[in-house]
Amino acid sequence: MILNYSAIKKQILNETVDTPLSGTLSGHAAGEPFEKKVYKKIKALYPFNTFKQFEYLNKLFLSNPQCTTYEERISLFESELVSFLIRRGKTETNRWNANNLFEEKQNDTADILYIDNDFYEIIDVKTRNMNRQAQPPNIISAYKLAQAMKIMIDTKEFNKIDIVYVEVDWVQKGSKLVATDAHIASIFKTNPKNLYINWSAAMQIQFHVSDLPQDFNGTQEEWAREYLTNYYKQALKRAESMKTKFAYPFEDYINN
Amino acid sequence: MILNYSAIKKQILNETVDTPLSGTLSGHAAGEPFEKKVYKKIKALYPFNTFKQFEYLNKLFLSNPQCTTYEERISLFESELVSFLIRRGKTETNRWNANNLFEEKQNDTADILYIDNDFYEIIDVKTRNMNRQAQPPNIISAYKLAQAMKIMIDTKEFNKIDIVYVEVDWVQKGSKLVATDAHIASIFKTNPKNLYINWSAAMQIQFHVSDLPQDFNGTQEEWAREYLTNYYKQALKRAESMKTKFAYPFEDYINN
Repeated sequence: MILNYSAIKKQILNETVDTPLSGTLSGHAAGEPFEKKVYKKIKALYPFNTFKQFEYLNKLFLSNPQCTTYEERISLFESELVSFLIRRGKTETNRWNANNLFEEKQNDTADILYIDNDFYEIIDVKTRNMNRQAQPPNIISAYKLAQAMKIMIDTKEFNKIDIVYVEVDWVQKGSKLVATDAHIASIFKTNPKNLYINWSAAMQIQFHVSDLPQDFNGTQEEWAREYLTNYYKQALKRAESMKTKFAYPFEDYINN
Repeated sequence: MILNYSAIKKQILNETVDTPLSGTLSGHAAGEPFEKKVYKKIKALYPFNTFKQFEYLNKLFLSNPQCTTYEERISLFESELVSFLIRRGKTETNRWNANNLFEEKQNDTADILYIDNDFYEIIDVKTRNMNRQAQPPNIISAYKLAQAMKIMIDTKEFNKIDIVYVEVDWVQKGSKLVATDAHIASIFKTNPKNLYINWSAAMQIQFHVSDLPQDFNGTQEEWAREYLTNYYKQALKRAESMKTKFAYPFEDYINN
């Protein structure tokens, strides 16, 4: 976490957005304007280092018009780890051109990308309606993170990225939503054992940012190996429960 | 399918609802008013047999005020199969009282319940924006359906229920959404082999109603056993791929 998050937090507190006209207040739509606010605050503080993920990709490809194939465009990322985390799919990357730029995509890894020389801070903003009790949100696919940690170890890119989550808490006050609190946490600062993987919800890691302990003191390589150990064991456990809970109870009922 | 769906379909075609003021047109919110329309049409045709699921549960419990515990309330269902499919959870059922009625819940099995003597037609309405290409929607949990089919076989309740899906297709015309087509299909009239289970999306069966073949001619017991056979094999396959795809590739990276 190299950004000045305490300054950012201060600027977010008491910010307001209009209550959406329709739809439930639990969903993505209600909180989305706060995500835009966080982006604007960070952009104002670090105007030359701050990008939306799609914006960075557009900039990278626009500055290199000689690269026209998927392979050529992918080679523009100077880091395999960063490439894996932020590139778009093959078809989309092939189809990209100056008249067909990337647009925002909900399952991009980063809401906001902070780039300083060859360091990438991947920032994801979660917004939370404090008037309701809600399940912890989807954070990132545990499988995607496992693949990323494997690449990190293979390429020894241990100080290349951070993945930071910003939670904006809000309540409704009449026609406005008001930001009442904000929480910031790095995934690499929590013990991987704390990470809950919801295997049936697209293998998503889920947590409220405000609940995430930040007391892991090991290196990023230690984190990656700890994470993969935990992930691997849980995946095997899930494979076992797929059989014992979801298959075997029906064994006596099947046609042979 | 004992309702007159061709009459219902005719009544839905060219119906309009207001375009929602905000939010994306892909989501649940846009199509929801059509679900309400379908309910109203069916209710008008069969006023004494048509209920929302929560409405039926409220009616059942309100007519039996002597039943106050979970066990007593659950015993009111004269069918274990129907009870499994439409009852609410233990805590909720315990907390229910005349001043704390059930309300609509998104993951209820039925949007609409048609009850004729001791037959239950469970009707689920799917709405579809024809201006967009979208993934097939979540239909029902494959695991829940497996449990239901196990109960069906155990209790021999083979002519107790149907599960019918109504797809309302719509397009946006200015400030209105217009219903352009409707499709009706019974899950028991399709070969269970046609059912795609998305294991990572909460084990949901997914299909567009309009794409669902309706040529299964076996009995409901045959359907149940075919379904369980197919489900069981897929669950074992998924357990295997949990290991080979999601665990083993990371084996060399873990701490021992």
